[in-house]
Amino acid sequence: MRRIALLLEYDGAGFAGSQAQSGRRTVQETVEAAAESLTGERRRIAFAGRTDAGVHAIGQVAALTTEALYPARVFRQALNRYLPQDVAVRAAVEVGAAFDPRRDARSRRYRYDWLDGRVRSPRERGRAWHRERPLDAGAMARAAGLLPVGQPRDWAAFAGPVPPGYPTVRRLAGCRVERTGPHSVAVRVEADGFLPHQVRRMAGALERVGSGKMSPEAFAELLDGPAGSAGPTAPAAGLTLERVTYATGMVMWDDDEDVPTARE
Amino acid sequence: MRRIALLLEYDGAGFAGSQAQSGRRTVQETVEAAAESLTGERRRIAFAGRTDAGVHAIGQVAALTTEALYPARVFRQALNRYLPQDVAVRAAVEVGAAFDPRRDARSRRYRYDWLDGRVRSPRERGRAWHRERPLDAGAMARAAGLLPVGQPRDWAAFAGPVPPGYPTVRRLAGCRVERTGPHSVAVRVEADGFLPHQVRRMAGALERVGSGKMSPEAFAELLDGPAGSAGPTAPAAGLTLERVTYATGMVMWDDDEDVPTARE
Repeated sequence: MRRIALLLEYDGAGFAGSQAQSGRRTVQETVEAAAESLTGERRRIAFAGRTDAGVHAIGQVAALTTEALYPARVFRQALNRYLPQDVAVRAAVEVGAAFDPRRDARSRRYRYDWLDGRVRSPRERGRAWHRERPLDAGAMARAAGLLPVGQPRDWAAFAGPVPPGYPTVRRLAGCRVERTGPHSVAVRVEADGFLPHQVRRMAGALERVGSGKMSPEAFAELLDGPAGSAGPTAPAAGLTLERVTYATGMVMWDDDEDVPTARE
Repeated sequence: MRRIALLLEYDGAGFAGSQAQSGRRTVQETVEAAAESLTGERRRIAFAGRTDAGVHAIGQVAALTTEALYPARVFRQALNRYLPQDVAVRAAVEVGAAFDPRRDARSRRYRYDWLDGRVRSPRERGRAWHRERPLDAGAMARAAGLLPVGQPRDWAAFAGPVPPGYPTVRRLAGCRVERTGPHSVAVRVEADGFLPHQVRRMAGALERVGSGKMSPEAFAELLDGPAGSAGPTAPAAGLTLERVTYATGMVMWDDDEDVPTARE
């Protein structure tokens, strides 16, 4: 039995999230169906991270178990022929049979995008949270700079509803806000893992800072609040899973493309 | 009777082109319907340039005749509430009653985008022509540099089907190809006007240069060929109408946004 890791890009607008849900169009079921068309085998595909309905990815990692004998790069080429236009395999590589894309991940990086022009942009719809008034990206950057980086910390204040006993300690690796254009602002945040809705609640609170409703200091103090008290939860459309990182050498994309790599 | 000029952005994927066609969803009919909802008047709206099905715009110009008394900027705000998500009014300004967005235009600028990565991009689908092999942007730029700039020239070789006697002389103001990213190339071309399909045939021929099937010199010689002989016609999805320019002072967007202006 072989194990193939897949690097996935998708536009989340047409999916009810990454994880299979009966009767809904999801990334997981779409990729499983394409794999079945290729291999004749119907098997569950594991993902590095759950993404909600409307959330995008350029660097989601999935893993497929198969008896098919194709070289790994043929999986990329052939799956892309079976997959619909809103999802693609950017790279495929053979990994060890025990590879678990979720458990083995060392870190995940997300990006959240805002457009802050007076007029919404038809060409960017579904890609960013549109705010009619200019955001103060400097204040947002100062707020991001106050977050605890490198140490384990309880992030329950930024969690969506989670089951009792759910572990809420995560270690932030970095958080940076920058103005990416005359009418666009983005935050990139990386951690060993994220709680459900955590990045969207961070984006929701940063938007309050950027629109002058909250100081950077008050933002940083949100971490001390009760579970689920930070936010609001920013719209899904602005969020993109950019990269999942594994231990050195664990996944190495056998690809000459400019793809996120697990070895950085 | 007043005349309001509108600066329009749209994603062309959901439209059967800019011009009204009975029974099809077009930009013209969509904007006319929004204007009717606002003003109670059903009137034809004139456009600066026709765009085909699937072609995008960030700087299309339209003009609306109305008896409504709203300030021009209210047209922008209110029309954007009535318009669907794939089209928006970026700016609105009052112009003279005789303003004709097509006839009065001094120049139009289009952009054509390619993605040249081995894997198609779900997030860029409908926005660019995907080529699996890398394009030689340098050769494409040399080819573009050989085109006749500043003088009237017969462009019939690059025209789609046109009626007998259709004038085919146009004056190119500029044409520039550049690599815009590791896997993206774009051409921008400006002229006093374009023949039907001209930019897409130029892009189709440039793609042949970029993929090594035609030399820059052979590209420049296409102009001497018979009507409709240059091409092929590149897919509509890669094309965007970026800007329409008018005589100085003719249209001035009363807007503090970073919009293309008619006064550049």
